[in-house]
Amino acid sequence: MKKVTMLGAGSWGTALALVLADNGHQVCMWGHRPELISQINERHENKDYLPDVKLPEGITGTTDLQESLKDVDFIIVAVPTKAIREVLSQAVPYITKKAVFVHVSKGIEPDTLLRISEIMEEELPADIRKDIVVLSGPSHAEEVGLRHPTTVTSSSKSIQSAEEVQDLFMNHNFRVYTNPDIIGVEIGGALKNIIALAAGITDGLGYGDNAKAALITRGLAEIARLGTKMGGNPLTFSGLAGVGDLIVTCTSVHSRNWRAGNMLGKGYKLEAVLEEMGMVVEGVRTTKAAYQLSEKYQVKMPITEALHQVLFNGQTVETAVESLMARVKTHEMEDLVNTFENQVK
Amino acid sequence: MKKVTMLGAGSWGTALALVLADNGHQVCMWGHRPELISQINERHENKDYLPDVKLPEGITGTTDLQESLKDVDFIIVAVPTKAIREVLSQAVPYITKKAVFVHVSKGIEPDTLLRISEIMEEELPADIRKDIVVLSGPSHAEEVGLRHPTTVTSSSKSIQSAEEVQDLFMNHNFRVYTNPDIIGVEIGGALKNIIALAAGITDGLGYGDNAKAALITRGLAEIARLGTKMGGNPLTFSGLAGVGDLIVTCTSVHSRNWRAGNMLGKGYKLEAVLEEMGMVVEGVRTTKAAYQLSEKYQVKMPITEALHQVLFNGQTVETAVESLMARVKTHEMEDLVNTFENQVK
Repeated sequence: MKKVTMLGAGSWGTALALVLADNGHQVCMWGHRPELISQINERHENKDYLPDVKLPEGITGTTDLQESLKDVDFIIVAVPTKAIREVLSQAVPYITKKAVFVHVSKGIEPDTLLRISEIMEEELPADIRKDIVVLSGPSHAEEVGLRHPTTVTSSSKSIQSAEEVQDLFMNHNFRVYTNPDIIGVEIGGALKNIIALAAGITDGLGYGDNAKAALITRGLAEIARLGTKMGGNPLTFSGLAGVGDLIVTCTSVHSRNWRAGNMLGKGYKLEAVLEEMGMVVEGVRTTKAAYQLSEKYQVKMPITEALHQVLFNGQTVETAVESLMARVKTHEMEDLVNTFENQVK
Repeated sequence: MKKVTMLGAGSWGTALALVLADNGHQVCMWGHRPELISQINERHENKDYLPDVKLPEGITGTTDLQESLKDVDFIIVAVPTKAIREVLSQAVPYITKKAVFVHVSKGIEPDTLLRISEIMEEELPADIRKDIVVLSGPSHAEEVGLRHPTTVTSSSKSIQSAEEVQDLFMNHNFRVYTNPDIIGVEIGGALKNIIALAAGITDGLGYGDNAKAALITRGLAEIARLGTKMGGNPLTFSGLAGVGDLIVTCTSVHSRNWRAGNMLGKGYKLEAVLEEMGMVVEGVRTTKAAYQLSEKYQVKMPITEALHQVLFNGQTVETAVESLMARVKTHEMEDLVNTFENQVK
């Protein structure tokens, strides 16, 4: 039995806490909202974020960060990307023994253009940095909460840490594969939200499944193009954290990025969409960051560029889609060779 | 304006005839059933196969094979895979001038294990063989009939023929990319039906989107593994005829292979499913052929093997899925490197 802290009590953190408790571990969830934490402690549920799921008794909650971090073996970071720096800086003074940090968020920090593990490296003590693990893959929290079969990737610079996290989470319903390519895993996880927004837009415009499949295919190519340029292994983008996560996010009604895109496609303004959603739409921030990355690394990313025009420069979705459709390239291999050639490691 | 024969008057042949007529070409559809052909000629519709679509006047129909083939520039083969040999052997004597043959079917011939262009090479005169073109990609006929945006691949040993077919079909809604890798394009198109059957099964069992995304990811890897061993370019499987077609077939209610799998997952027997469907379920034949190919080329194809057990050896779907989930491999890269390493051309 391991002692685990879950920082964040949203949908994904709660679902992962359930997996860990099912495996016999002791999980303490930390969150801001007292009523949500007492609901976890007293009624064993988290109605706002994971409704209709009875949480195992091995899960407790606290609003006291210091208490949550005492003598734990693993610390899972499950807060929105933009809150990570603040939460970590508050947490570091309370760490009482060397723990493995796992993050399960998806995004890129705008302006610094750092991946999440890189943000964490900046915030964490030196002896912990190389053990940071990312858990990523096609995994809607709602389905994990129902113990439906789910498969994810555990990735780290430290193979040992990735395997420890694999052992921690692995069970019959929740299968964990290791992958040493943390760059590819984080880029795949972050950038799929951009394509999910775009897929929601084409669905909102009523374009259908043929158009969406073409969009996902082109989206995968541009993610892989950037990811390999940044040092990722092109094979990762053919795996669970690449095409797997992309598919589930673009084709499922559970995805909030898809839902946000869908509203944009139906003609709602961005401000109205963000207000309506209530929850964080990571894809919007990620589009800004990915657009900056495409400029920094000189990589062509037509879908990211078109979405950037819609989100930040007031272009209509119709004009953006037209510009994508009207691309002159007609030899499929040109793009793909550009993405993968001589890059397989 | 070109003269085009469409051999076959099913959903896909009818939708493609509409694209060609939209482009100003003269299309003659050949089919067996007089009532269906007279419906096309007199009422400009094909209610059984493409309901609610008004066909352009540039499309005519005939049951007379000789008449349909007179002086045509392109001959599109849009009949079920198992009918191709018979239709071609009947057609060859009636060809009056050198035409480009295009096939739009998806499958592998059991026992001979030939791709469709290879079957056609056996049946067609020598001077036509190298010009055979395959048109493939994520494209439900229903959506093409509604002129929704669709993107496909034109592939041939002859680049010139692939480009002629690209020019023939290309328009604002129907975009055609060329790809010189006819092996990869045909294998991707054929084998995705196996994964669609399997995806239907997991959906029928109620496993959810996480499981399906993992299945599609693993399915893409095993298709690419076989396809590269057979001489295909691994990049093709990351393109429209690979991952694109796979996604659309596994996630759309339009797919008859998915629907057949869905019924299997819900507990129906294979015979009952095939009877209920009425239309050909290519994935069943393809599973048999792909299983034979995996043995011939010594390629591990766990999903194909599991489905083969269900379809032909009476295994229950639950047992088959259990065997897939219980696989011991836990390093994602092992499989992927095995698929792609040193294979990029």
